[in-house]
Amino acid sequence: MLFKEITILNKDYNIEENMYVGVEGDTITYIGKECPEKDFGEEYSGRNRLLMPGFYNAHAHSPMALMRGYGENLALQDWLNTRIFPFEDKLSSNAVYWGTLLCMAESLRFGIVSSSDMYYFIPDMVRAVADSGAKANISRSVVNPAGLPFAQLPSVQETEEAIRCYHGYAGGRIQIDTSIHAEYTTNEETVRGLADLTREKGLIMHVHVSETRLEHEECKTRHDGLTPVQYFARCGLFDSPAVAAHCVWCDDRDLEILKEKNVTVAANPVSNMKLASGISNTAKMIEMGINVAIGTDSVSSNNSLNFLEELKIFALLAKVRNQDPTQITPQEALKAATAAGAAAQGRKDCGVLQEGNKADLIVLRTDVPNMHPVHDLLNNIVYSAAGSDIVMTMADGKVLYRDGEYTTIDIEKTIYEAEAATEAILKQL
Amino acid sequence: MLFKEITILNKDYNIEENMYVGVEGDTITYIGKECPEKDFGEEYSGRNRLLMPGFYNAHAHSPMALMRGYGENLALQDWLNTRIFPFEDKLSSNAVYWGTLLCMAESLRFGIVSSSDMYYFIPDMVRAVADSGAKANISRSVVNPAGLPFAQLPSVQETEEAIRCYHGYAGGRIQIDTSIHAEYTTNEETVRGLADLTREKGLIMHVHVSETRLEHEECKTRHDGLTPVQYFARCGLFDSPAVAAHCVWCDDRDLEILKEKNVTVAANPVSNMKLASGISNTAKMIEMGINVAIGTDSVSSNNSLNFLEELKIFALLAKVRNQDPTQITPQEALKAATAAGAAAQGRKDCGVLQEGNKADLIVLRTDVPNMHPVHDLLNNIVYSAAGSDIVMTMADGKVLYRDGEYTTIDIEKTIYEAEAATEAILKQL
Repeated sequence: MLFKEITILNKDYNIEENMYVGVEGDTITYIGKECPEKDFGEEYSGRNRLLMPGFYNAHAHSPMALMRGYGENLALQDWLNTRIFPFEDKLSSNAVYWGTLLCMAESLRFGIVSSSDMYYFIPDMVRAVADSGAKANISRSVVNPAGLPFAQLPSVQETEEAIRCYHGYAGGRIQIDTSIHAEYTTNEETVRGLADLTREKGLIMHVHVSETRLEHEECKTRHDGLTPVQYFARCGLFDSPAVAAHCVWCDDRDLEILKEKNVTVAANPVSNMKLASGISNTAKMIEMGINVAIGTDSVSSNNSLNFLEELKIFALLAKVRNQDPTQITPQEALKAATAAGAAAQGRKDCGVLQEGNKADLIVLRTDVPNMHPVHDLLNNIVYSAAGSDIVMTMADGKVLYRDGEYTTIDIEKTIYEAEAATEAILKQL
Repeated sequence: MLFKEITILNKDYNIEENMYVGVEGDTITYIGKECPEKDFGEEYSGRNRLLMPGFYNAHAHSPMALMRGYGENLALQDWLNTRIFPFEDKLSSNAVYWGTLLCMAESLRFGIVSSSDMYYFIPDMVRAVADSGAKANISRSVVNPAGLPFAQLPSVQETEEAIRCYHGYAGGRIQIDTSIHAEYTTNEETVRGLADLTREKGLIMHVHVSETRLEHEECKTRHDGLTPVQYFARCGLFDSPAVAAHCVWCDDRDLEILKEKNVTVAANPVSNMKLASGISNTAKMIEMGINVAIGTDSVSSNNSLNFLEELKIFALLAKVRNQDPTQITPQEALKAATAAGAAAQGRKDCGVLQEGNKADLIVLRTDVPNMHPVHDLLNNIVYSAAGSDIVMTMADGKVLYRDGEYTTIDIEKTIYEAEAATEAILKQL
């Protein structure tokens, strides 16, 4: 495909107009001001359109889309104990497949090309993501409620099987990460065991860190005053590339460790607001040079995957948190939504619009009143664009969503099956 | 028009399915479970559609749409002094007309049927709103930087002329409110003078109150320890129906006064975040029984009019502010976005879907992945719906926006003229 005379968000997060961008196979092979002579197949008119990298969702639990709006306005423990845990207890392969596919449909609609996705029923998640054409770094979250030895943990065995079967699956679109669910759901032997496995296999670790004040404080009580970051660091969990989700209550020493260990922080602004967990200090993290990416968390605590909305709230929250309207520039927000998330997934040739990179692209329409006037298009992308103004989403050079239609997903059937699977679970409760 | 077999948000903020809603002239004349025998003209299929009241934007400065994204990431005083004030100084009738019309186009796209709109160049604002088919309570904000006597103030004279010419204009779609800009831009004689005028004429007062901590604290220094609310109350400003915009820094005594005087609080969650002003305690206000409505503030500090986004952030902010995920129910959020705003505008027959009320309606499509599954449609409207999933906006029974098209606005020309007017101003700076 050749995008003709289109406005682009370039690799330096600046806007360039009237550009030509050529895609061959799964790769961007041409970016320039001149129309290339080569035949790239379909020509796409760039009139009133902006081309930019797709979004990388740095923290997700896709199958939980089935619990969208289930048990709202409850305190956290009520919500978990009376709604989420009983519902999850009845999940099936079929439900997880359709829940994940629904989530991929929503992701593509809102420009998300790849997600760091932590949950269970890994084979069903893999199948749905693979079918959708999207990408994901999928992890089986390891928990150890019964205090079993590491080698006997079912979640570890499932992790090992996922690595064997699916790491690099679907032409590399699927990667398998490891995951410690959290400090409070595991013990030190489990954390050290998975840290070793992760390092041996050369994988990426995905872990919940200091989401709530309670979690943060109780960890200190249990582990000689160490915060979750400090405890995990001591266990060697950050000796592999890692994504630490939330980091709402991290202290200054924690941030120094995250920086030193090159850990990505996946900020989840909407979920942290909705569950009243708190507001992470993303502006400070970015200033320190920490790789800060953006996650939606699950749909059941968001309750959407509208990434442009998430991006806007990410920037707004930093300003009001620190009472400083200059914090988080549009460039910083856009980088967090794209390149920072791709880096967190170890996808080195993704997240930036440049020749040789994978063609993970979105097209935003600009012929709408909310995108005018244009004093600075970067500001308009971050603060004024609406989620459903994304008119095309492409991953690895393949158009997956365009003008409201999906090329890989039967959306009516997916909605129907996701509703039916949800109904079937609710009947068992 | 007859909406057939459609899901509705009823007057009690509950969902009813398979309903029939008939509109004749500017009024809803039928709501029922049975298909009426009467001919209502066009029949609209309700399949995969939700019908609900349009949104009432309780605080806006529409012409400032021309400054969307102009001077971002600046501290408040820098932004005002180096960008907003110099730009405003060059505004013309032509610019204000096209800026307001652009704003109306965006409003209609995002389901806003009526705005409480404070600015100047009132005749041009009136003309644009009237042309668009939308509604507005428009006020000329009274300021008195030079300390002139009340009767000599140009802004007062313009207010009086607006009342004479435009109060009840365009079949009542346009109402004229009065407006004190703020405590710090006026003096006591001005406030008392406009309070008297407002009471005599039986109008509604629209005023900025305690938006920033600085404004709040300096007022106390100037007025014997009185906060803006307390000072305005002493001046009789709240002896007329009133809309107090922001109220971020109000103390407990202030909230008691607002409740006692039946003042509407127009919360502006996005603008308050973007300018780093703070987070108002809307949950407490609602609990006290204060009429809390939602405003976008101007596009230059938002930077959009995506009211579903504003509504979601309104609810989210209350939760994280008070560390309580149970605060602000979906019903409370929806009421703030509709009936509370209509009440603030003195539009007694608006804001609620019931027979005899004005047909100010929006239709939301629900056949999109982000609206499924449906555990509770109210939750999905507040937290999962995307702004541009609104497929119809109707005011006073007239369809103004439908499936991306406007019936009253030439959107290409409006974008062109708004851009041209902006360019012309920038050239003078």
